[in-house]
Amino acid sequence: VIERVDMLGIMSEAFVAHSEGRSVIPPVGELMVDGPPSGEVHIKYGYIRGGRHYVVKIASGFPGNQRIGIPSGSGLMLLFDVRTGMLSAILQDEGHLTDVRTAAAGALVSKVMSTAPIETVGIVGTGVQARLQARFLVRHVGCRNVLLWGRDEDHARDAVDDISSSGVETSRATSVDEIVDSCRLIITCTSSTSPLIRSGALRPGTHVTAIGSDTPEKQEIESSILGSADVVAVDCIEQSMLRGEVSQAIRAGVLSRGRVVEIGSILNGSAPGRVGDDQITIADLTGVAVQDLLIAEAVSDLCADG
Amino acid sequence: VIERVDMLGIMSEAFVAHSEGRSVIPPVGELMVDGPPSGEVHIKYGYIRGGRHYVVKIASGFPGNQRIGIPSGSGLMLLFDVRTGMLSAILQDEGHLTDVRTAAAGALVSKVMSTAPIETVGIVGTGVQARLQARFLVRHVGCRNVLLWGRDEDHARDAVDDISSSGVETSRATSVDEIVDSCRLIITCTSSTSPLIRSGALRPGTHVTAIGSDTPEKQEIESSILGSADVVAVDCIEQSMLRGEVSQAIRAGVLSRGRVVEIGSILNGSAPGRVGDDQITIADLTGVAVQDLLIAEAVSDLCADG
Repeated sequence: VIERVDMLGIMSEAFVAHSEGRSVIPPVGELMVDGPPSGEVHIKYGYIRGGRHYVVKIASGFPGNQRIGIPSGSGLMLLFDVRTGMLSAILQDEGHLTDVRTAAAGALVSKVMSTAPIETVGIVGTGVQARLQARFLVRHVGCRNVLLWGRDEDHARDAVDDISSSGVETSRATSVDEIVDSCRLIITCTSSTSPLIRSGALRPGTHVTAIGSDTPEKQEIESSILGSADVVAVDCIEQSMLRGEVSQAIRAGVLSRGRVVEIGSILNGSAPGRVGDDQITIADLTGVAVQDLLIAEAVSDLCADG
Repeated sequence: VIERVDMLGIMSEAFVAHSEGRSVIPPVGELMVDGPPSGEVHIKYGYIRGGRHYVVKIASGFPGNQRIGIPSGSGLMLLFDVRTGMLSAILQDEGHLTDVRTAAAGALVSKVMSTAPIETVGIVGTGVQARLQARFLVRHVGCRNVLLWGRDEDHARDAVDDISSSGVETSRATSVDEIVDSCRLIITCTSSTSPLIRSGALRPGTHVTAIGSDTPEKQEIESSILGSADVVAVDCIEQSMLRGEVSQAIRAGVLSRGRVVEIGSILNGSAPGRVGDDQITIADLTGVAVQDLLIAEAVSDLCADG
């Protein structure tokens, strides 16, 4: 049923609504479980003024789950009538809708900020998001091939096999450098806490969409890259001051808030995005409640329609 | 099924766990819906170390609902396995469990802090909580009669009739003063934003359990009463600095944080509560996630047992 939703369209709608000041998004609620086993829970919630619902999403990550054979991430979304507070829908998606909206947002941003045409997309990461990014980028951005790198070779082979089996020519890179050298569009989607892409490595004309870091601790890109990039775009400026690559670069003192633009502002034309084929551009996504709201509404509407 | 739960017992367990530093309770998440119609949503969440679950409770209040014939308050609780983040139970109680745990906590605190025996309990308020307090106080604290006041006479008559019909002798007070003069145990449970109990009105030996105010704005008791009270107890000191009667008194400069004790500390004997029959004592409850956690676990366990 989810295939019938125009995912890139609703992600665009979400980002524009947010950047036009029509969304109400309190800070992300965070519960740290100190264990063992340890885990963390994020609660994202909010609404768009003039809309029908507010959403509350509860998402968890318990890395130790893999040892007992269950997914580390899970979650669910709840929709409430914004005029009465009455519960409208519970979407027990176990985190799948978050994976999909993240992939769709990544594809949208890559489409808007990279230099077309992209022959080969470089993907750093081997998990669910690496596979979904490949699928969305091939379908919506016209990428032909995938070059993939992962720290764990077995996981990387699995991901390459999986993406290849969907008919996309995919090969495994032996290093991040190989990706940086051959790809003008790079997606990072790991849970790394130390930079994988090093300062000075990116070639002119490259766009990187950084998806992995959504906490103050995680980091995939060396901060000085953000400092010298031509464009640094985020989904939500407020949130990026606290979470993700941008928060790292701000704390490191190499990036100022004034240099960060919102994707919704690029999409509605109120801020420039990439303005030249030789620019280096970075998009840092930490995931915003408006994305959850609109995908939950879309899926809920489809279910209601049968 | 809920009748089989020892509500006062689990509220005591919740307060003690919290005051002994065994709970993890982030600040309450808050979503203001500016409408019209306007409403507010509170998200309370947390866990007890060594326990089985974490809870997330989403509670809403939309005053305009009454005009369209539906309750203004609603809510649900979710339990997750604290070792994996997997969803364990959704309790779609529409706020009922919050009402019950609030009434049980109120009765527990009134039992511990008032001067027994209490012949007549004074209740300021006419809503669901007024009725539940009456029921819990008669059953668990041994109160015999209820004297009730409400700003709206019709609502007060309804509440008196309702409580009377359960076999408790109940009469309507014509003023708050009448309650203050005749009752040594007083429960306030309104949504008032200006004080109903005035400074100097309370007679020696009185205990007041203030339940209505759970936001920075709401207030039922003049702040100077807290300033001169012999004991000021709360469910959670951190939360009471931001919400409820205590937060009002702190902001007014008539009460210091060091004078506020936690109910869990009184219950486990690490702090004194009432130490004389002539003392004036106040308990200010804003409602804590540990209460939600333990009532949700108890109800969920009972349902699982059939």
